Amino acid sequence: MSEASVVPAPPSRPNVLFEYLLRCGDDRLVLGHRLSEWCGHGPILEEDIALANISLDLLGHATMFLRLAGEVEGKGRDEDALAYFREVVEFRNCQMVELPVGDFGFTMTRQFLFDAYDLILLDALSSSTHAELAAIATKALKEARYHIRHSGEWMLKLGDGTEESHRRTQRALDELWRFTPELFTADAIDMELHAAEVVPDLPALRPAWESIVRDVADRATLTIPHDAPRAASTRNGRSGAHTEALGHMLAEMQIVARSHPGASW
Amino acid sequence: MSEASVVPAPPSRPNVLFEYLLRCGDDRLVLGHRLSEWCGHGPILEEDIALANISLDLLGHATMFLRLAGEVEGKGRDEDALAYFREVVEFRNCQMVELPVGDFGFTMTRQFLFDAYDLILLDALSSSTHAELAAIATKALKEARYHIRHSGEWMLKLGDGTEESHRRTQRALDELWRFTPELFTADAIDMELHAAEVVPDLPALRPAWESIVRDVADRATLTIPHDAPRAASTRNGRSGAHTEALGHMLAEMQIVARSHPGASW
Repeated sequence: MSEASVVPAPPSRPNVLFEYLLRCGDDRLVLGHRLSEWCGHGPILEEDIALANISLDLLGHATMFLRLAGEVEGKGRDEDALAYFREVVEFRNCQMVELPVGDFGFTMTRQFLFDAYDLILLDALSSSTHAELAAIATKALKEARYHIRHSGEWMLKLGDGTEESHRRTQRALDELWRFTPELFTADAIDMELHAAEVVPDLPALRPAWESIVRDVADRATLTIPHDAPRAASTRNGRSGAHTEALGHMLAEMQIVARSHPGASW
Repeated sequence: MSEASVVPAPPSRPNVLFEYLLRCGDDRLVLGHRLSEWCGHGPILEEDIALANISLDLLGHATMFLRLAGEVEGKGRDEDALAYFREVVEFRNCQMVELPVGDFGFTMTRQFLFDAYDLILLDALSSSTHAELAAIATKALKEARYHIRHSGEWMLKLGDGTEESHRRTQRALDELWRFTPELFTADAIDMELHAAEVVPDLPALRPAWESIVRDVADRATLTIPHDAPRAASTRNGRSGAHTEALGHMLAEMQIVARSHPGASW
């Protein structure tokens, strides 16, 4: 062994685009997986099928983002390696998407809050200077437009429906609201990529998001909670801090792939 | 109460078309639901998404058959009432589709055996003299062609793959084979509808089915078991005799709809 090889290599500059793509991919992988838990358990066949279709769209978008992440990383990891062989602290999704599925009101409220974010973010990413990222966003945006219509209509039906459906949906909105600042909190990765015109200015997207959310909430006779105080730190899902729920979900999601690594089943 | 009302009404002639449509709908509802259990648990993302898509196709076909069943019955039951508010003894699916999901080899072998049956049956039903039934079959047939291609390719990969995948797939084929006679056993309902040219002669479909199955099995280096003796009676899934597994599955599938009957969730 030559003497040079024992000198540790300097830590490589973190690959900020890789990190950003993980965030995009993991949000959709985790939410798509959560939504798939409704498979075969919906209240009516048509809605069961609709939810499963939306879940599949999200998993499809996740696949595109994670595949590109693997290419950008350049270490030979593909989307499956990234989905099934990372530990919970390596996941970069926001915490909102990992919360347990709850009742139908909770599920649909979370979908709605995320769908509005998805719409605005993908729209902005579709004019990224990074061609592949822009292409993925453009493709996913088409389906995201359908998703927000679907969840928005449910918000109206549930919020302005029966006393029980209103109560449950308002409760879900109250519970979920404190997880929304994370969606628009920029850290060094966002800022560096924004400066390079690869991604939009994250905090600047919030007003457009809130306008969609408030409009639907008003018509659904739901009350938007007072804004939760912004978290002082960026120690959140984007840096690998997750709720207990994600670990349980990943254990279940990853077991088949891990039991037979490299096998076709 | 008038005297006439205490005379019991003669049993109405069973609605044979209704019964037949339940068989078609329930096969696909139960198998689609079983397949959906893989949602989020597949070994690779792409296959996870493919299985979920096939599950959705089957649930879509089930919806069409059950909707028509409800119309034909004429008692105001729609596809949801039929899916979520019947008891296990009222289900008319063949037993093969209700067996627990097993490992990936079992799942895929069952899909393959059913897909070949589905292809041949839908093809025959697409020239039914019953216009709505023919239209449903024609529509479903397009997707069934894709399904058999998908499961057939997996049979080749698994059967002619690793020693382990071969062993598991052969075991699945051995276990499932005894459930295949039910697919082609005609009872009075089949015979009456066949005489009216509404449905094909069921036993006559078996040779075409077996030819597809044997061709793929041969190429996959799998051995078709010796034919199980035909069940002497038609006391099977088509008349409401089911394995224990169906009750467990339905309990899970029906709980949300039954907990909130008539509610939008």
